[in-house]
Amino acid sequence: MLIVHNTLHRQHAGRHEMFRGRLVPCHESPDRLDHLLAELARRPVGEMVEPAAGHLDEALLAQVHSPRYLQFLAGAWDEWVALDPANAELDALPSVWPVRGFRADVLPTNFAARMGLFSFDAGTPLTAGSWAAARQGAACAIAAAQAVGSGRSRSAFALTRPPGHHAGPDFFGGYCFLNNAALAAQQLRQSGFERVAVLDVDYHHGNGTQTIFYGRGDVLTVSIHGDPMTEYPFYLGHADERGEGEGAGCNLNLPLPRGTGFADWRAALARGLDEVRRFGAQALVVALGVDTFEGDPISAFKLRSTDYLDIGRDLAAAGLPTVFTFEGGYAVAEVGINAVNVLEGFGA
Amino acid sequence: MLIVHNTLHRQHAGRHEMFRGRLVPCHESPDRLDHLLAELARRPVGEMVEPAAGHLDEALLAQVHSPRYLQFLAGAWDEWVALDPANAELDALPSVWPVRGFRADVLPTNFAARMGLFSFDAGTPLTAGSWAAARQGAACAIAAAQAVGSGRSRSAFALTRPPGHHAGPDFFGGYCFLNNAALAAQQLRQSGFERVAVLDVDYHHGNGTQTIFYGRGDVLTVSIHGDPMTEYPFYLGHADERGEGEGAGCNLNLPLPRGTGFADWRAALARGLDEVRRFGAQALVVALGVDTFEGDPISAFKLRSTDYLDIGRDLAAAGLPTVFTFEGGYAVAEVGINAVNVLEGFGA
Ligand SMILES: [Zn+2]
Ligand SMILES: [Zn+2]
Repeated sequence: MLIVHNTLHRQHAGRHEMFRGRLVPCHESPDRLDHLLAELARRPVGEMVEPAAGHLDEALLAQVHSPRYLQFLAGAWDEWVALDPANAELDALPSVWPVRGFRADVLPTNFAARMGLFSFDAGTPLTAGSWAAARQGAACAIAAAQAVGSGRSRSAFALTRPPGHHAGPDFFGGYCFLNNAALAAQQLRQSGFERVAVLDVDYHHGNGTQTIFYGRGDVLTVSIHGDPMTEYPFYLGHADERGEGEGAGCNLNLPLPRGTGFADWRAALARGLDEVRRFGAQALVVALGVDTFEGDPISAFKLRSTDYLDIGRDLAAAGLPTVFTFEGGYAVAEVGINAVNVLEGFGA
Repeated sequence: MLIVHNTLHRQHAGRHEMFRGRLVPCHESPDRLDHLLAELARRPVGEMVEPAAGHLDEALLAQVHSPRYLQFLAGAWDEWVALDPANAELDALPSVWPVRGFRADVLPTNFAARMGLFSFDAGTPLTAGSWAAARQGAACAIAAAQAVGSGRSRSAFALTRPPGHHAGPDFFGGYCFLNNAALAAQQLRQSGFERVAVLDVDYHHGNGTQTIFYGRGDVLTVSIHGDPMTEYPFYLGHADERGEGEGAGCNLNLPLPRGTGFADWRAALARGLDEVRRFGAQALVVALGVDTFEGDPISAFKLRSTDYLDIGRDLAAAGLPTVFTFEGGYAVAEVGINAVNVLEGFGA
């Protein structure tokens, strides 16, 4: 297992998010990754590397995200501070957005309007270092996929935050700006794998990844998650979403009720892996969130730490070149144990 | 001029709104209407009445707003407090919403998800009394239109808050929950006027009203407002939005740049009134915001208090049965003077 590590992740550290009508401290904190690093120091499961400094495949980025979205993200912090120097002490959060019937084809010059146009929640603070951290995270995901794509490593883990699976073609949200799992899948395609699967095991539906690939037949997206009727991100993730156009049949959602324990969860994983096999995937991306853990403060499945060893084994049994991207998990002290259990169970 | 007054408006008093990334005290406050009432006491321009207690034409309401939206609003406060008794001390604000590609056909059971689905900003706090105040406001608008529709009064003013022109078929925002101007127009249609025009002179584009009537040929919507490239509510209000289907040609937007003074504004009003005449409107609804005032804290036109007398005269010259609904205006001390100037200039 090659581990590609984002050394810039601490540059993204939000202060507050809107959560159930009030501003609260951010759940998605730098500590999460530090616990993972500490656990990897105790239980080394692979070689730790960094992506080449200062390099990011912009063309690949533009195959996953729209140019106007990337341009917005690149300049957002400077625009925010230019509005008012006092903003330097505040995170930027959206507060107005285009609902049904409103236009997204005309890009307003107003900053708040663009911020709302490119987002789906007020829980994803944009800070001075968000763009640098997110870009380096994307570089980690691409580097991990290149290592697997070139055959240099059978498996790789993009150890990064902010997470990515909620970020869509032209929207951020759910603590995510750039979709690391989608970038890894796209890189695997470019490395020559003709059919690639993304399997999202985070507690929350991978709405960004689904949206990015919904019309494509070359990338299967599978997500096991809390039922969107009750669970964030709500507006996608139902079982009847199967893809469209060339992507018809190439999306599978496996929503599960709050309180689901490992036996039922593992049965869903088996079904997801069946679909990966049926699709004929030649390579696999696992969007690895560990907020399925029973102790997670914002989620409601009942997985225990030892279960993550079995998840790793089940994933390994698929027998595919595999890239992991690190997604959610907010029981900070156990994030490291649970994530490294997956990698240890996966082996190699 | 008949003045139909919402005695329940004080029940809607938001504490905070999200404004440029932070929670600030609400701009849309009960004081606004109290200043208007005080000015009307000094300069009585008509008879002051209340709508019949406890009655609201639910069928008319359902012609303007979707049943599932009305059902959400009716139960929203109780749901919010049921989530956590401590919520009784907090206003409810949306924090997650469906962006492009997300579903609105499935209604989540989660309260926050539904609140976001039915809104377009985080600046419109829903409080314990919002629904009662908004319903009574709708009753005022309908009663004003009934009085004009029956010929009992040549003109009427729905003196109410929260305002309404930003509320759409199934969304709230911009301090608005129910679209009073649209309800008045719909009532005028039912009273027998075959062609009705809504003329929106608030600083902000009447995005809710436009959306409600966009596909209809029997109601013309005209709005004079700050250019949505830079001004709230941003995502609608451009000149190329002319209506669709049966409503093609029945919407006119007249965006003006920040800093516009009365001469240019009045020329736009003349153009809007030309369109009302060309359309053959038999009755007029004026969505009367006075945030075009030079002293308004959140707007950027340069109208002076005496200009509002001319606006009233220009509107009267259209010679149509007219219903006014009260919309924005946040220079609280001058709201009464400016709004009553319009009514005085209008006369009778
Ligand atoms: Zn998650
Ligand atoms: Zn306004």
